[in-house]
Amino acid sequence: MITISLPSNTEKTFDKESVTLVDVAESISHSLAKEVLVANTNGQIIDVNTSIENNSKVNLLTWKDDEGKNAFWHTSAHLLGAALQELYPGIQLGTGPAIENGFYYDVDFGEYKFTDADFGKVENKMLELAQKKSGNIRIKVSKTEAAAFFTQNFNAYKLELIEDLSDGNITFYETGNFTDLCVGPHIPNTSFIKSVKLTAISGAYWRANEKNKMLTRVYGISFPKKIELDQYLDALEKAKLRDHRKLGRELELFYFDEQVGMGLPLWAPKGEALRQNLIGFLKKIQMRAGYQHVASPHIGKKELYVTSGHYAKYGQDAFQPIKTPAENEEFFLKPMNCPHHCKIYATKPRSYKEMPIKYAEFGTVYRYEQSGELHGLTRVRGFTQDDAHIYCRPDQLKDEFLKVVDLVNLVYGKLGFTDFQTQISLRDSVNKEKYLGTDEMWDLAESAIIEATQERGMKTTTKEGEAAFYGPKLDFMVRDAIGRKWQIGTIQVDYMMPENFDLTYTGTDNTLHRPVMIHRALFGSMERFIALLIEHTGGNFPVWLAPIKVIVLPIASKYISYCQEIANQINEEFDLQIEVDERDEKIGRKIRDAETQKIPYMLIVGEKESEENKVSIRVHGEGDKGAVLISEFMENFRKELKII
Amino acid sequence: MITISLPSNTEKTFDKESVTLVDVAESISHSLAKEVLVANTNGQIIDVNTSIENNSKVNLLTWKDDEGKNAFWHTSAHLLGAALQELYPGIQLGTGPAIENGFYYDVDFGEYKFTDADFGKVENKMLELAQKKSGNIRIKVSKTEAAAFFTQNFNAYKLELIEDLSDGNITFYETGNFTDLCVGPHIPNTSFIKSVKLTAISGAYWRANEKNKMLTRVYGISFPKKIELDQYLDALEKAKLRDHRKLGRELELFYFDEQVGMGLPLWAPKGEALRQNLIGFLKKIQMRAGYQHVASPHIGKKELYVTSGHYAKYGQDAFQPIKTPAENEEFFLKPMNCPHHCKIYATKPRSYKEMPIKYAEFGTVYRYEQSGELHGLTRVRGFTQDDAHIYCRPDQLKDEFLKVVDLVNLVYGKLGFTDFQTQISLRDSVNKEKYLGTDEMWDLAESAIIEATQERGMKTTTKEGEAAFYGPKLDFMVRDAIGRKWQIGTIQVDYMMPENFDLTYTGTDNTLHRPVMIHRALFGSMERFIALLIEHTGGNFPVWLAPIKVIVLPIASKYISYCQEIANQINEEFDLQIEVDERDEKIGRKIRDAETQKIPYMLIVGEKESEENKVSIRVHGEGDKGAVLISEFMENFRKELKII
Repeated sequence: MITISLPSNTEKTFDKESVTLVDVAESISHSLAKEVLVANTNGQIIDVNTSIENNSKVNLLTWKDDEGKNAFWHTSAHLLGAALQELYPGIQLGTGPAIENGFYYDVDFGEYKFTDADFGKVENKMLELAQKKSGNIRIKVSKTEAAAFFTQNFNAYKLELIEDLSDGNITFYETGNFTDLCVGPHIPNTSFIKSVKLTAISGAYWRANEKNKMLTRVYGISFPKKIELDQYLDALEKAKLRDHRKLGRELELFYFDEQVGMGLPLWAPKGEALRQNLIGFLKKIQMRAGYQHVASPHIGKKELYVTSGHYAKYGQDAFQPIKTPAENEEFFLKPMNCPHHCKIYATKPRSYKEMPIKYAEFGTVYRYEQSGELHGLTRVRGFTQDDAHIYCRPDQLKDEFLKVVDLVNLVYGKLGFTDFQTQISLRDSVNKEKYLGTDEMWDLAESAIIEATQERGMKTTTKEGEAAFYGPKLDFMVRDAIGRKWQIGTIQVDYMMPENFDLTYTGTDNTLHRPVMIHRALFGSMERFIALLIEHTGGNFPVWLAPIKVIVLPIASKYISYCQEIANQINEEFDLQIEVDERDEKIGRKIRDAETQKIPYMLIVGEKESEENKVSIRVHGEGDKGAVLISEFMENFRKELKII
Repeated sequence: MITISLPSNTEKTFDKESVTLVDVAESISHSLAKEVLVANTNGQIIDVNTSIENNSKVNLLTWKDDEGKNAFWHTSAHLLGAALQELYPGIQLGTGPAIENGFYYDVDFGEYKFTDADFGKVENKMLELAQKKSGNIRIKVSKTEAAAFFTQNFNAYKLELIEDLSDGNITFYETGNFTDLCVGPHIPNTSFIKSVKLTAISGAYWRANEKNKMLTRVYGISFPKKIELDQYLDALEKAKLRDHRKLGRELELFYFDEQVGMGLPLWAPKGEALRQNLIGFLKKIQMRAGYQHVASPHIGKKELYVTSGHYAKYGQDAFQPIKTPAENEEFFLKPMNCPHHCKIYATKPRSYKEMPIKYAEFGTVYRYEQSGELHGLTRVRGFTQDDAHIYCRPDQLKDEFLKVVDLVNLVYGKLGFTDFQTQISLRDSVNKEKYLGTDEMWDLAESAIIEATQERGMKTTTKEGEAAFYGPKLDFMVRDAIGRKWQIGTIQVDYMMPENFDLTYTGTDNTLHRPVMIHRALFGSMERFIALLIEHTGGNFPVWLAPIKVIVLPIASKYISYCQEIANQINEEFDLQIEVDERDEKIGRKIRDAETQKIPYMLIVGEKESEENKVSIRVHGEGDKGAVLISEFMENFRKELKII
């Protein structure tokens, strides 16, 4: 008798010695059995042809699940390796994992030249192999057997990998004629793969070490239906038009410059206006929620990061220390704001009465990333966090967590990001030794997070063992147009840093207590969030966010002075910098240019308007809205600006 | 016949072979002759007993002039040296200059112990020597004679100094029995010095080199009248109460922390609110004046500063470069924002039509200062500049300069800094070779500055030869309560940087032209300006600047909910964070605490107020103003907040 516990508290009982996960799926429905790709069995993702002999917790995973996609693309990587080996005999394969959107294989092509002109040939070979419906057979091998195989089918890279593995832990996967060193898991067979596209080619050092040989990384993506590939390619095409790097240049928002340094954005006037509109919005909301804004320097002495614990953990991989010309001091560019905020907390004795204390800062931080990893505003070396730290009493933790969750919902809602995912990261309930703090602390913090999300009816996924060693957390993720997942907000409970900085408050009992600290960011990185916002809106920002909200367009030069009066009136009333298009151009051209700049309101003025104290309103992307009195426009405009 | 040209175009003619500057003074008035301390003769400050044999331009200087004070304190330093030598035979004197407020002498006391307990004895000896009315006699000596003197009257420090001097340029000054190696100038005799006070003692490395011996630096100040010393000491005492470091702590505005790094301010919530109030005020004014705000990173690659020219000039003495863990790149903390702004200018082709382009940034910059030089917010290692750069056509230069001058007057006026000094720094009209650019450029720029200040009727001093090598400038200085002079604003014309970054615009002639650049800051450093503002106001900020503007004080706990209503009403209307003092304390205590915090408005609520929908207003430092309707308070409050 084997009992399989499934999600949503259902159970299936099998009167057998063993059962495969396909059998489990079949017991639910035939169609599920045809769709299941891998399964989470007692916390591990495994092949569905695995035999289960004990009672188990099972979650069957399909293409709809991240883990299902991952296995699908992992098998696709093997298929790519197999196709390449057939087409280019003697090549040596490096590693070939699934990635967020697809998969790659790193290849030493030896004497072969491989370019994107060869993509079609490889795609066809992959589909041909896929149709053979080869299973993915997991085989345990000894270290000697493994080495012997890759000596015979010579592959120096795999041999190097095997060298580092311990005997007894080595597995191969066989897919048709193709054999690879691999831990799996894989999908049942290759016939699930119905469409394939190779997407890019790049250089990659073997084991990401620049001292090693540069291999050729071949990227691809695959889908279980042909139409999904078409949809993906279509989305990709549309995404290109919305690419924040392209729109950033066209709308003159931000630039990068070699001499300033890559990954260090220069915010041009319109970009800075957009940034300040966002910051102003958040500041207002944060002030109302009782946050106090502070400011701290962009560097800190090495000792600060030794105390916080960051130096030991990240010192080697960070921007290296700044020395002084005369004195024996070392500073680091600040990679986060929390140590500075702890120092502000520590400037005076605190009482239970003033808790919680909430410090917020739009703090620009610097983190080293390899130049090859940089990408527009989404992967940078300097970015501004919408950072805040809440110092509270343990009894306030749940309530404070709830307040942050409400703030997240409020802010994302106002910005139209309603389709976000929420992940709770808890401690590994079995291996507790690597976490700091007592069971009591963790129970308090974890239940605070779980209850807060439940009380607000939020759909969450929970990952055990993914908490930081200093406390559990709640992360917010959004997907962009082409399915890439981006982390934005985070709420993290921290027991460590108050300890490291010896932060205290006097309790009702008149003795010193340790506060709990919550790190939270709603956007994470303003830069990354603006990139998402640009791609999400295609640069058509809502009025309150738009860097230029209004432009006044005279139909002929004789209306310029009336137009200037209108502009001045709006500028004075709203403290804006709106302009009159005084160029000697036809009105059609002026409108086209304003539409290209994606300015929400065009106020057009001709004979009739100037006589009646009116403007004709044209809304970007919507067209003409007719003539209204200026006072009327101002009134509606005021309402649109006031989003909170 | 010798003709002496005096300021304001008057001339004096003497029928003699030579004439001393005292004679010149005597020819004007007997009282002037008794007051004159030194004279500017053909651009050089010299002793008034010097014989003039040729026609000369002369400006006679007294205690009222900076140069007069400087000579007065320089002679006082000699007097200090003389007194110490008499009291402590065998000591060796280092250097003894005048400084901004007084003078010092660095002394190697050998075996003697010298502490501030000895100050009185030295002061008395100095006054005793001063009464001897000893003249200061300038003597030219050969290098051999100079060395012989200080070998006989052994002084290793002076011998080292003489070693570095070239023969023919060495002078001694004899004051009574005291002889010093000195270039002068000095005041006519010691009897001018009527009061003396030694003020401090500190350690100072010989020649500011930490490898050398640490000498004892003895500071003092002196005055021509006894009452002036009393006034000075009185002002000093009052200044201590207003010291921005003291008030900064008391009002919880900012802190420094060893682990963060000295000279790197941490802005606590109230300080950050103050800072943001100031920044918001400037931003509003700047936007109205057509400035566009931009944002740039706090680091830049070494190549950026090689291009700008800063690396060659300051690279060695700056915070040292930041290396990356993997790639071969070097970054510097940015010491100024101009190179970054030039890069933003260069992001696209510019036309004469869009000039001037004005980029403003509240950019935090980092400059290394020796830790011993750091002082509160006035000398820091990281500070925020209210920086802007104007790129204009040469024909726009004067007009743009005028606009900046108007902005300076507007901003200083709004802040109550009406008593500022203005200095024009021009090129040395004789030695032109060290300046970049053509005569035409310089004439244009210099006359733009001179005319702009004249048109606005500003009182200026003009210093020839003090321009930067890249252009002339206009500086704004204020004096604090104890007479220290602080530079705040600056407007500088720059021909070099547009050249270095190859900035261009297309002119009406359709060819490329080089723009002129104006660097300007109204406050210079926000940190230093806030320090001055704190000391200027004693922490009693005007309402619009105050970090906490209002507090609501219930007379008893039963009025708390009514008070909260009022607070909420004000918070919502003005987006503030004003609070209710809910403590279980007597109203007298609540008022005292609010007064200590220097909160401008206390709104007191008791029986009568809560019944009549009123509040009783108490103004900080002014007392009770009676009860008014809440609506009435709000209306007046709104007016007070709107300063522009």
